[in-house]
Formats: sequence, C-alpha cells, structure tokens
Amino acid sequence: MNGADLLCETLLANDIDVCFANPGTSEMHFVAALDRQPGMRCILGLFEGVVTGAADGYARMADKPAATLLHLGPGLANGLANLHNAKRARTPVINVVGEHATHHLPYDAPLTSDIESLARPMSHWIGRAAASDEIGQITEAAIREARAPQGRISTLILPADVAWSETTAKTPRKAALSAASAPDMKRIEAAANALRNGQNTTILVTGLALRQTQLEKLGRIARKTGARLMAQQSNGRLQRGAGRVPIDRVPYVIDKAVACFAETAQVVLIGAKAPVGFFAYPGKPSSMLPDACKVIDMIAEDDDLPLAVDMLADVLGVDNGMPIEIASRHRPDLAAGKLTPEAIAIALAHYMPANAIVCDESVSSGRDFFHKTHGAEPHDFLQLTGGAIGIGLPMATGAAIACPDRKVISLQADGSGMYTVQSLWTQARERTNTLTIVFANRRYAILHGELKNVGAGVPGANARQMLDLDNPALDWVGMANAMGVEAARAETAERFADILSSACGRNGPFLIEAII
Amino acid sequence: MNGADLLCETLLANDIDVCFANPGTSEMHFVAALDRQPGMRCILGLFEGVVTGAADGYARMADKPAATLLHLGPGLANGLANLHNAKRARTPVINVVGEHATHHLPYDAPLTSDIESLARPMSHWIGRAAASDEIGQITEAAIREARAPQGRISTLILPADVAWSETTAKTPRKAALSAASAPDMKRIEAAANALRNGQNTTILVTGLALRQTQLEKLGRIARKTGARLMAQQSNGRLQRGAGRVPIDRVPYVIDKAVACFAETAQVVLIGAKAPVGFFAYPGKPSSMLPDACKVIDMIAEDDDLPLAVDMLADVLGVDNGMPIEIASRHRPDLAAGKLTPEAIAIALAHYMPANAIVCDESVSSGRDFFHKTHGAEPHDFLQLTGGAIGIGLPMATGAAIACPDRKVISLQADGSGMYTVQSLWTQARERTNTLTIVFANRRYAILHGELKNVGAGVPGANARQMLDLDNPALDWVGMANAMGVEAARAETAERFADILSSACGRNGPFLIEAII
Repeated sequence: MNGADLLCETLLANDIDVCFANPGTSEMHFVAALDRQPGMRCILGLFEGVVTGAADGYARMADKPAATLLHLGPGLANGLANLHNAKRARTPVINVVGEHATHHLPYDAPLTSDIESLARPMSHWIGRAAASDEIGQITEAAIREARAPQGRISTLILPADVAWSETTAKTPRKAALSAASAPDMKRIEAAANALRNGQNTTILVTGLALRQTQLEKLGRIARKTGARLMAQQSNGRLQRGAGRVPIDRVPYVIDKAVACFAETAQVVLIGAKAPVGFFAYPGKPSSMLPDACKVIDMIAEDDDLPLAVDMLADVLGVDNGMPIEIASRHRPDLAAGKLTPEAIAIALAHYMPANAIVCDESVSSGRDFFHKTHGAEPHDFLQLTGGAIGIGLPMATGAAIACPDRKVISLQADGSGMYTVQSLWTQARERTNTLTIVFANRRYAILHGELKNVGAGVPGANARQMLDLDNPALDWVGMANAMGVEAARAETAERFADILSSACGRNGPFLIEAII
Repeated sequence: MNGADLLCETLLANDIDVCFANPGTSEMHFVAALDRQPGMRCILGLFEGVVTGAADGYARMADKPAATLLHLGPGLANGLANLHNAKRARTPVINVVGEHATHHLPYDAPLTSDIESLARPMSHWIGRAAASDEIGQITEAAIREARAPQGRISTLILPADVAWSETTAKTPRKAALSAASAPDMKRIEAAANALRNGQNTTILVTGLALRQTQLEKLGRIARKTGARLMAQQSNGRLQRGAGRVPIDRVPYVIDKAVACFAETAQVVLIGAKAPVGFFAYPGKPSSMLPDACKVIDMIAEDDDLPLAVDMLADVLGVDNGMPIEIASRHRPDLAAGKLTPEAIAIALAHYMPANAIVCDESVSSGRDFFHKTHGAEPHDFLQLTGGAIGIGLPMATGAAIACPDRKVISLQADGSGMYTVQSLWTQARERTNTLTIVFANRRYAILHGELKNVGAGVPGANARQMLDLDNPALDWVGMANAMGVEAARAETAERFADILSSACGRNGPFLIEAII
C-alpha cells in the first residue's frame, strides 16, 4: 500500500469513517485511496468552510472526530474560521491538508504557502509527514491529540509524494488514546467549601457538564447549596428541554452580563472559563465578574469532568434521590399576526419534535429561542462557539450526518448564513434531515446594536452600506431551490407555524425564509 | 480626531478611496470614521473572500490599491485565499484587520486568535498599531509597502481601542513612495548578448511587460532577434486582442509545458519566474526547462520594468519604427449545435465589445478562449494567479468598480464559482457592468484529468462523490436571480450567441449559465 492508503486505513482502524472533503490535485492519491475504501463515507462541500464546519457539527453529535480533506494552504485557509469555532468548542477534528511533493516545494509553485503558519492559530497539534513509512505513526499521533479528553484540532500535512510512495507498513494500528486524568481532590474540596460558605455563588459550566447526567447532578448540587447553576454564554452542546434541568446562560449583551454577576461573590468553574466580554467597549470592563469575586477553578484541562462532578456531589453529600428542578413540557399557544423572532420561538416550542438537534447561528434574532424553549421537547442545542460566523449551515449538515434519525433545526441569521450558503447543496446531495429557518431581517442587526454600544453613533450612508443587506433583498427560497433544497417563505406568524408544522413531519432538507 | 479617523483620512490623502469591507464589532469605530468620509466608497461583500478578491480585481485595473476592512483573525482567514492570489499577482492591497482592544486581548475572548500568524503567509508586510498617535505613521508604511514598484500585500492590524482613542495628530500625510530602482546595465547586456548569440531563446515576461506599450517593444525585440516572446502561464493583467501583440502563455498541462521548452537553450526572464509545474506528478519534472537551459534574469524585484525594456531595446538597436506582428481583428463565424467551450470562445471572439475586461477563472473549460481571441476586440485579460479558486466573481466585481465604463466578462468554472458565489449580490447592489459566463460542466473537470495525471486511476464511487457536482445540478440562473442578478441559460451554441449578443449591449450585472 502507499502512504495515502495507510493514512486512510489508519483512520478507519480508529473508527474514523467520515471524511468531509474538498480535494485538489495534490490530494489525488488520497482521493484514490479513499476510493478503495467503501467503509469511508466521503462528503463533498463546495467550499472548505462547509467542510470544516460540518466536521465540527458531526463530532459534537457523534462524540468522535471526522476527518477533513483540504487542498494546500488556501484550502486550509478557507476552512480556518470554522476550525476556530471547533477549537473554541473543544471539538475533535482531524484535518488532512495536502501539500506539494517534498521535491517540488523549493520551486515555489503558485499554490505554495506556509501551511504551518496558517494552521497554528486554529490547531492544537500540527504534524507534517516526511516519508510514507512515518504515516502510520503520525496519523496515530493526530488521532490521539484530537481525541484527548478535551477535543483538539489536529492538522496533518500530507505532501503528495509521501501519499503516493509505497510504504513497508502492512497493518494500520489503533492509536493509544490518553485517558482523562483524575481530578485533584484539593480542588474539589475547595469548590465544595465555597459552595458551603453561604456566599452568593455561581457554578459556571460547559463541555460534558452540559450533558443530561451531569446536569442532573449539578442541578441537585445547586439546589442543595443554594448556588446558581449557569452555562457559558456559548457552548458546543447543551442538552435541554422537557425532562431536563433548565439552565440559563451568561448573557451576550455586555451590560446584562455585568448585571448578571453584580451580586456574585464566588464563581466555581467546571470546564468553563471565567466570563469575559465578547468584545471590548469604551468604558466597560473586560471581565464580567466584580473585582472582589473569587474564582475557584475546579478541574484541570484534561481532568475527567463527569468524575469530578461525581466527586463534588459525594463531598457535598448530594445523592441521586435528592430533589431537583426539572423542566416540564410546556407547549405554548401559537402567536398570531406579524412574524417576529418571538413568534418563531413560540412555534418551535410548540412543534419541535423530540430529540431534535438545534444548531443556533441566529445571532441577534434568535435570543428569544432559549428562554421560550426550556419546556420544549428535549433537544440538543449547538452554538456558535468562537464568534466566527458561517458555522450554522455546515454544523447542521454535519450533525445530520452523525444522527440521521434525528431532526436537525438550523436557526440561521441571514447575514451569517450567506458565509457558507453552499452547505445547502451538500444537504440536498446527502438528503440530510435538516430544517433551516432563516431569520431574514436583511441586515447585520447585531452590528447596528454594536455601533451604538461602542459609542460610534447613528449609522449614516457609508455605515448603512456596510451593515444592511436590503438592497437587493436576498431570496432565500430561490437560493435553496437553486441548490436542490425545497423551501417556503413566511411573512406572518400563522404561515410560519403552518410551514413549520409540516416541515417537522417530513424527511430531507427544507428551508423556511422567515421575513422578520 | 480619533485613530480610526486618522487612518481613514490618511488613506484618502493617498488617493485610496475605495474600501471593500465586511466589518464586525471590533471595527465599529472604523465604520463610524468611514461614515464621516463621503469621499470613501464603501462596498460590502457578504463574505471576506469577496472582499479581498474584489480588492485584487480593483487594483489590477486601477493601478492603485483599495483598502479592505476585515473582522479579526477569522475574517482575515476567510479572505486569505484571494490574498494569496493577489500576492502572486503582485497586486497592491491594504488590509485593515480589526483586533480586540489591547487591554481586552489577555482575556482570550472567543474571537481571539494569532492574527500575525494567519497574515504572514499571504502578506509582504504586517503592522500592528500600538497607539492612536502611531496610526498616521503606520498607515503611511502600509501604503508605501503596498505601492512598492511591484505591488505588495500590506496587513495593518488595528486594535479597537487604538481606533477609538483620540490622536494628537492633526493632518493626514501623503506617504513617501519608493521609486523603482534603475535596472542594472550588466543584466541588460547579459540579456542582450543572449538574444544575439543565435541560440534558441524564449523571452518570458509578466507584470508591466504585458501592457501594450511594453509588449510592442518586446514584440519588436523578439522579431529582430528571432526569440520567442511568451507570457507566464498565469498573469495578473495582459493587454491583448486586435491591434496588439499576440503573445502565447506557458501551457498549464505539464506535458505540454515541457514540450513547449524542449528546444529552448536560453530563457530571458523579464519580471517572470522560471517556469515550474503547477503541481508535482510522479516521474515528471518540477522545472519546465531542459536541464541545460540557461536562465538570464534581466531585472531585480523592484527595478523599473518599462525602463529595463527600453534599455534592452536600445542596446539591441530596436526602435519604434521597426516592423512588428500585430493581431488583426478576426471575427469568426458563430458555431452551431451543441454548446461547447469552443463555441463559447468563438461567440466571445465574435461579440465581445472593445475594451472589455476578461476575468478568467474558467479553469479547464476556458482553455479554448485564449487562442480563439487573439483577434477579438482589444481587451484586458486577468487570471487566477495563485491557483486558489474563488477569485473569478470577486475579481470581476472589483474590476468593474475600477472601470465602470468598461464591460467586465467573467469566464467562470462552476466549481470555482461556488466558492465566492456571494459576489453576485455585491454585483447586484453596485450595479456593476459584469457579465458572468458560467461553464456548467457540473464537475471539477480539472480533477478528473489530474486524477489520471498523477496515475491515481479511474474514479470510483468515493472519488466521483468528491469530483462531481451533478447530484443535484446547480441552478445558476436561480442563484443569480436570488441575489438580484438577471440571468439566462443556454444549452446550444445558437442560444448562447443570442444571449451573449444582447448581454453585451446592456448595462448592469448579468449571468449566462452555459450548459456544456
């Protein structure tokens, strides 16, 4: 076998059997190797931002990485924004980036660039295969890094000649994965002591703490100690809805976030980071916490988070029989009249099927969704974690590949949706069970707010030229149709509810353009 | 004035009055500054690849840079592929990349990343403004670098607080530009000696050598010395058509390129690089030149190329009265029947108006165009210089902004076109005089060829899944309409010619989906 075959077989031996791809000439031997492996599912994205965003959504739901296949430096560059989001979500991803043959590199052919420099900011680990016999080992390393207890981004650079050269290796090997480290009892006790000292305390969590089992334990801990349980502003995956522990998130808007912690004396972090502003604003703080607030970080990077939660419960004497607040199913009455973000949230709370996966890139328009759906059918909630817009449609695509039996609902702002609109084609081709709801307000609405927030004034002609999308208006139904996705437009709450109701009952991709 | 105002006014004082933009929160003060400057034309791209590709197309035609406005590391990352192309074209571009406020950076907010590491591979110069009083100086440096004799990519990182802080500077200054250096007479003489020694010689050129005045001189030099005059495979801008010197380019296909130089004993480079393969292929060379071929590089990086051509002509005793081969207007008869790339090339040679700007990202489908249009009406020909697909539609958009009175014709492969399809919206909004011709072969046709070229075999199911775009077929007319651009579909040569004829006579953006 050649290097490309060995890479491909090593991925498969490690249960990595989906490859989101947009290859070029330098990756043709890897394409040929994939072609010899019917066990590998290859999914084409018509732009690399689709590829990497889909890998993120896939891994968030599959709890294992997909591979990506990217074409040299520019192909990687096109995928970086969504790798940034994946890195912030701590999603495992294994990028295979093609490179010129080693002997060709000194010639500085037109597509040559410094791939490592591009990869570094959005990767935890970068490797470059120097010879085909090294490919087994370096692929195992890429897998081991990606599958660290907290997911990482591995970027493996594959020169064309390394891919096409024969290897003496015969058998792909399973990578030895790193087990999560045991939590430090001193840190658990410090957290427990804080939770018992009677001060105003918030337990701030993310990652595996947001899965149902851990949330129930944390809910009991919060209830027993009187602490407030909160999730980070943005999270890779949060299990919520009826039958689950209702949990609020740190607000995005700076003044609300500061107010939210104004009375907080202590914050216990479990997987989360101390809350900071998404952006800086003149005269406003960077940290959302009061100066005097004490921060207790309960676990280290690679600690076993579920075990740490168990240990904390044990130390605090909290057992599974104790009372807990659980959201009950609440099916709100549908709204009528003008279509608003609130009406959309209500309709979703009403109709969303059980076990949906909600991918949220609704930016400003979707802020109603979260608090209106504590009592919706149980669902997973996936967010834009790194602030790099253009994740929504790809993430939904990948999540649907990971979970073909579940309905994936994209809450999609129009401005952000345009970044990776090519995802709709992949949805059509793969017949993903994705329902996209475009919040068509025809502007970067958040930036109108931010222009005001930073004290930069009221938008004039040049600013509106950069913040508004209304001239011409984007026809989302037309765009979806043109890429093979059926779609409908709603301009009233009633029409939206009708379309949503029937869309929830169908299979395959569908898009609703919600004019708000 | 604040730092953002000073930056904006310094740009304007240096005749940089177009800003292609996709801003975010960290750039809001710069947006506000632009808003106070009606002399600055702000053009929104709905994705950063549109922004940077448009800046490239603009500068190629305006012979001066535009500014781009990009949002932090991920916004820059999205624009890198087309900056790679601009860097390879030696197009001047000035990127303004917003950054978190300096005091906010240590908090590692979600959008934080290493902007320098991202920028380095695709920039010649990177600067970070540390204080508002430095902005005048650092903006001048960015402009000076971009406007070096050979265009460069300047990336200026602008922290939000530096933008919003007041500056003591009162007046924006004009940057002192670097004059081109005088060519070295010894190198000119070495080139002249080679051209006189009777060996088989090719003069290989790019850059300013491809403008009409220089081409005419070079045409006379070639004719007098018996040398062959060729352009690089890919060039930023080439003036050609009836009344101009017909010039061939180095072929893309490796075997053809090698054959093209098989008899060549000497190559005189004027602005160009020695020809190398776009990619490496097993058993094929990286250099296109025979081992024994002598390479004479006539000018240094920042030499005055037109002056060097004049000097060479003087040394060789070539004056403007000498005979020269000039292409005469040839209007071929239209093709009939099946629509083929050749039929499209013929129709363009027939109907293309004088002074059109042709932006070529037709990849494999457009290879007929070049040799069919030596006798078309005179036009500028702009190419994909760095091999990073997705430049075509943005480049055309930018070129049309630079030259509103000329027809811009995009020769656009379908696969590449999808990379930055959002450009159509900017064309609709700005009413650019752009005519896009999509070569809809519904596959990455070049990769089918390359899979064969690298010896990787015949595509099977997984390979076809990654190389074909036919399931579902993209509806380009629908996509264009959905973004506000009128469009029509052609499936026969006659229909294509009819649509082209009427499209050449109208203003504003239009798209023809050519089913080939």
